[in-house]
Amino acid sequence: MLREDVTEAIRAAVFEELAAVGFARMSIEGIARRAGVGKTAVYRRWKSKLSLVLDLVGAVAVQGLPAPATGSLHGDVRALLEVASHALRHPVASQVIPDLLVEAVRNPEIAEAIKAALLDGRQGVVAQVVREAVARGELPEGADPDRALDLVVGPLYWRLVVVRTETPQGYLDDLARSAVAALTA
Amino acid sequence: MLREDVTEAIRAAVFEELAAVGFARMSIEGIARRAGVGKTAVYRRWKSKLSLVLDLVGAVAVQGLPAPATGSLHGDVRALLEVASHALRHPVASQVIPDLLVEAVRNPEIAEAIKAALLDGRQGVVAQVVREAVARGELPEGADPDRALDLVVGPLYWRLVVVRTETPQGYLDDLARSAVAALTA
Repeated sequence: MLREDVTEAIRAAVFEELAAVGFARMSIEGIARRAGVGKTAVYRRWKSKLSLVLDLVGAVAVQGLPAPATGSLHGDVRALLEVASHALRHPVASQVIPDLLVEAVRNPEIAEAIKAALLDGRQGVVAQVVREAVARGELPEGADPDRALDLVVGPLYWRLVVVRTETPQGYLDDLARSAVAALTA
Repeated sequence: MLREDVTEAIRAAVFEELAAVGFARMSIEGIARRAGVGKTAVYRRWKSKLSLVLDLVGAVAVQGLPAPATGSLHGDVRALLEVASHALRHPVASQVIPDLLVEAVRNPEIAEAIKAALLDGRQGVVAQVVREAVARGELPEGADPDRALDLVVGPLYWRLVVVRTETPQGYLDDLARSAVAALTA
């Protein structure tokens, strides 16, 4: 394997291991086995499983998300929900994120990396959606973007990641309408 | 120690161990050490750490929650948020619940126990709040209790358990107003 291919195989193996056994039980040995490389190939690149995971989480953060800019608060919220729903239904994301959030409680380094990766990007997008809605007069001056994030993403996260029950048809449409009502209450 | 005291010491130790190291790293040995008893005292009562945790989670479920019955949808939602906020801020609950939800992804037995313990009780209370609001004409016939649970508890769970940022003063009041607007949208 080329050096870049080895790095990619290790990255893919980490996501698979995280999904299969979780951060606590994951080992460099298991990652190397799954990637089909030797343990030294992993240790040459990352000094520990923590630094490996932090590096991967950081890489996800860089991708970023564009703000939807549909021209209406409802359209923007619906678009945010579509992207979030896609991300939260992804089997790897839906297992790895809650797992790392659990670790974050006990490990400030993971907490910081997760916040940077998952929240800063989303907060930025939601903040822009809120700013544009304020500019159009759909939300009052000084509307709080953190509150908006809670009201838009909270119900969806609860349903898809915590409760994990089937969502009825038209669920995202209903959620977008509800979220706009909540935001403008 | 009396036999009942030993059982209680072990139960308390399990919650502390779950909070400190998580389900994946928790061991019967660590529990026994923390409880100040021998490993056999644990094994005489429970056959594995899984059955121990399932038993504890089941015991929490039995406690149940009364429906608030304040006479208005807003009052009931505000009361539900108060109870949920108290529960989700509890350091043990806020660490143990997400931890077990992570395990639930890989273990159907845990998934069932968690659902029974955390959701059935809450769903029952929310279903009653919704029924009473429908009877008062505050919500339309056929209003979905699962949707209500998503909209009431979702934003709070996201803020307190996922994002874990400070909540501004009057947060629950604002959330109650937003949730009622979302429910009636």
